[in-house]
Amino acid sequence: MIFAGVDVGGTNIKIGLVDESGKIIISSSFKTGSERPFEEVAEDIIVNLHALCSKAEVNFKQLGGIGIGIPGTVDTAKGKVVAAANIGWYDVDIADYLSSATGLKCVAGNDANCAALGEYKYANTKGYRNIVFITLGTGIGSGIIIDGKLFSGMGSAGAEAGHLILVYDGEPCNCGNKGCWERYASATALINQTRKAAEEAPNSILGRLVASEEKINGKTPFIAKEKGCPVASQVIEQYLHYIGAGLISLSNILHPEAFVIGGGISHEGEYIFQPIQAQLDEYLEKSGFLPHIDVVKASLGNSAGLLGAASLVMQ
Amino acid sequence: MIFAGVDVGGTNIKIGLVDESGKIIISSSFKTGSERPFEEVAEDIIVNLHALCSKAEVNFKQLGGIGIGIPGTVDTAKGKVVAAANIGWYDVDIADYLSSATGLKCVAGNDANCAALGEYKYANTKGYRNIVFITLGTGIGSGIIIDGKLFSGMGSAGAEAGHLILVYDGEPCNCGNKGCWERYASATALINQTRKAAEEAPNSILGRLVASEEKINGKTPFIAKEKGCPVASQVIEQYLHYIGAGLISLSNILHPEAFVIGGGISHEGEYIFQPIQAQLDEYLEKSGFLPHIDVVKASLGNSAGLLGAASLVMQ
Repeated sequence: MIFAGVDVGGTNIKIGLVDESGKIIISSSFKTGSERPFEEVAEDIIVNLHALCSKAEVNFKQLGGIGIGIPGTVDTAKGKVVAAANIGWYDVDIADYLSSATGLKCVAGNDANCAALGEYKYANTKGYRNIVFITLGTGIGSGIIIDGKLFSGMGSAGAEAGHLILVYDGEPCNCGNKGCWERYASATALINQTRKAAEEAPNSILGRLVASEEKINGKTPFIAKEKGCPVASQVIEQYLHYIGAGLISLSNILHPEAFVIGGGISHEGEYIFQPIQAQLDEYLEKSGFLPHIDVVKASLGNSAGLLGAASLVMQ
Repeated sequence: MIFAGVDVGGTNIKIGLVDESGKIIISSSFKTGSERPFEEVAEDIIVNLHALCSKAEVNFKQLGGIGIGIPGTVDTAKGKVVAAANIGWYDVDIADYLSSATGLKCVAGNDANCAALGEYKYANTKGYRNIVFITLGTGIGSGIIIDGKLFSGMGSAGAEAGHLILVYDGEPCNCGNKGCWERYASATALINQTRKAAEEAPNSILGRLVASEEKINGKTPFIAKEKGCPVASQVIEQYLHYIGAGLISLSNILHPEAFVIGGGISHEGEYIFQPIQAQLDEYLEKSGFLPHIDVVKASLGNSAGLLGAASLVMQ
């Protein structure tokens, strides 16, 4: 049977047809146009799904269903988007809407939860049954798999690790609180930390690099570090320690078998994984020889959300 | 059928015979004597259980099993105490030991997890399926019930909410980390905060009260507040905010239906529950009208651990 996966982002929407083995048969993407009313975006999704089916010679009416991932709080049991600020959807019965319009079963979930499910189902070569998926991007997204099933708390309002408090009374966060983990450990946070360090040390390699670049991004400090810049090394070391501290908090609640880390920063490879793993190992040993937790790189990249969304409706 | 519950503490061990409805038929307690080898303590437990059975005219051999709660990391699946620093037990096969010595089934768990199970099974009048139990004592103990079952992560090494990081790079903790929630929100922390405030304001009501008392405890600031002391009010307000901040972190991961709060401090009643509930409500509303979480008082008191231990072996 073939299923449709939809991964709604603030800028683009990715759609695809997926079989039960996790093979993406065909996919495409189009602009979200999040300034438009929800109904217009939903109609775009349906039109584009019909086009995909036509291209792939798949009978739309015989799809096993539509799974859709949304960047916000989604009550999966009710099929309702509670709040998705980036796209301006509040209190939207997305599953019912798509179902009525297409005659197909529709299941909606949070985008990071979908990505976690995708990584769990289709990239989990070690056979973990309990993972926490973390994506370091504009904010920090997360998804929790417990005993092979997605866990997101009452009303799917949990599994928001980005809003763990890391620094009591720290930097203000969009969520209304202060000191959330994502203010210190997201890619955005790394960029801010890089900019600040460059301003404080304008004559360092990092300082000169930042001054010469039009746009700094998450790679900037890694480039400066490669060139032997101690200021950049310190920025990265501190940043990784913030990531590790959040994982330690999570380990004390969930103690999963693995933390699966995605997002652009994860492509820096051993630069980031080795120190985080070492920090976590040291903590688990000091605090009572607790079971080892693997820190591994997510491997599906941009497809995780689409695959996970499709697999939402397979369940 | 009748089950034995054992609640091992650093100072005393409570034992009891419990029926399936959660009625404690008979109970007693004796000194732990934690300086002794593990085997001596275990023998004491068995001797005292025999004595209880004899008094209650219950056939020891016909007990449904022994459930035991331990203050430390306990791998329930393996029946092993990984580390229980307060009583000096490390890598102890407690379940096998008691089972071999008595011929009865034995299940071991962390003491706070047992208390959570006790509160869930025997005091849960609202029928919650998902709770986080928090006990504010020397440290902070916690137990997590998800969909009616105890959850404690791989090797039962999770559900240690007291070691959530609240203040990055904050006060050193016994666990080897810095800034753990229990350094700010346990009863011990309140006492330290009270002492510090009293030293800084020796002429306040709190300052004079602390100077006149031989021993200050968790009630001291509440007594001073009752007498109209603004210094004490501020200590309590800050302390409750630390508690609330930890609950907010937990809500972002687990989003349970209720936080069930135990420990001596919980007896202060509305003084503590109203502000914490208000802080949590405000956060959940600001961050996207997320589902309400009840903050309620634990109601089994000292019996929760014993009842929960017994119910470990009923499952």
